[in-house]
Amino acid sequence: MVAQQDPEPAAVGLAGRKPPKGTLNVARWNEILEAAGEVFNEKGYQAARIEDIAARVGILKGSLYYYIETKEDLLFALSDQAHSSGVESIAEGPELDGADAPTRLGAFVRRWTVVLEANPPYATVAEREVGRLSGERYEHVMAKRNQLHGFVRSLIEQGIAEGAFDPSIDPGVATNALFELMNGMRHWFRPDGRRSPQEIGEFYRSFVLRGLAAPTAV
Amino acid sequence: MVAQQDPEPAAVGLAGRKPPKGTLNVARWNEILEAAGEVFNEKGYQAARIEDIAARVGILKGSLYYYIETKEDLLFALSDQAHSSGVESIAEGPELDGADAPTRLGAFVRRWTVVLEANPPYATVAEREVGRLSGERYEHVMAKRNQLHGFVRSLIEQGIAEGAFDPSIDPGVATNALFELMNGMRHWFRPDGRRSPQEIGEFYRSFVLRGLAAPTAV
Repeated sequence: MVAQQDPEPAAVGLAGRKPPKGTLNVARWNEILEAAGEVFNEKGYQAARIEDIAARVGILKGSLYYYIETKEDLLFALSDQAHSSGVESIAEGPELDGADAPTRLGAFVRRWTVVLEANPPYATVAEREVGRLSGERYEHVMAKRNQLHGFVRSLIEQGIAEGAFDPSIDPGVATNALFELMNGMRHWFRPDGRRSPQEIGEFYRSFVLRGLAAPTAV
Repeated sequence: MVAQQDPEPAAVGLAGRKPPKGTLNVARWNEILEAAGEVFNEKGYQAARIEDIAARVGILKGSLYYYIETKEDLLFALSDQAHSSGVESIAEGPELDGADAPTRLGAFVRRWTVVLEANPPYATVAEREVGRLSGERYEHVMAKRNQLHGFVRSLIEQGIAEGAFDPSIDPGVATNALFELMNGMRHWFRPDGRRSPQEIGEFYRSFVLRGLAAPTAV
């Protein structure tokens, strides 16, 4: 229960939960998280056993308990990590200062495609199983998700205010739809497929901007 | 292993697998499938136990084995059912005879919203866990999914040929994106939310048709 007392992500980059002791082996912790993500992805979170994760890292179950207290600690760390990398993608470069909404949203769609590609295959589990987290941990991760959704929603609202996006659009509905559209790429994209992530990101950018555009006066 | 020998869905409507004996109690079979869907959804497919499903129906585990041989039989029946209702939504009414691609695709998006709303909350498990099905069963369900995707893809190709849709679009990529967009509605839509399924279906229809549209000559 360390993370709730320390809402700042630890400096290790894969945080959400600082491992509990001063003798932390960061490389090992990262290995453990990766193994947990893979096992959760293959077996489902609830069927996954601590033993399976320890075996994949090549350590004893008892050694794993040096890093965690429960399986949920691993889900929390993975979920927090996935959502943190999402929140980082909100940051806009100086070239977007004062840019209009289509430009800003288009740039975000491109950045998001990069996040998706950089995330490991098991990131989908970390996202989908957030509802299994208990109380404060759930709130902690959902606050990041809400921050991310709030950013996209504000861009859609900006676009409506500027007259670029269709004013009949419900910004909340559109935000949900955009994230499903973009995140769904993980379900079918193959790195060895006939289209590069850049090409797919470009299709998404164009599809989203056209889809939201205000109907031109006929 | 009955279903592989009998690729025709049984007439009970919730089929994919004819229960093995002549004394079938159809109502009970439907109850079992519903309980299985709920338990899979709550616990994850791999963590779900036959005992949990039997208990939810209020029968003994041994009685459940009258209907199935393995837990996978239940996943197969549920997946096949979900994909069958998807394939049914391909059927077009006579008013679409000779219609252009935007009209046909728009009508499909509306029909699909109805399918999503009519499907139980656990349909998402039946879709997501298809990869857990073994050999022929996986192929059987994927054939239906491919039929469904092929239909949408053919509409996008028709739209490009007619000049209504952007010719730079990859019809395969666009088809995947559309299904992720539409199916994602299940993850956030609340029947008691501020928007009706019809309103959301209308947003999706408009968003998709504008998103695919050929850029008008400037």
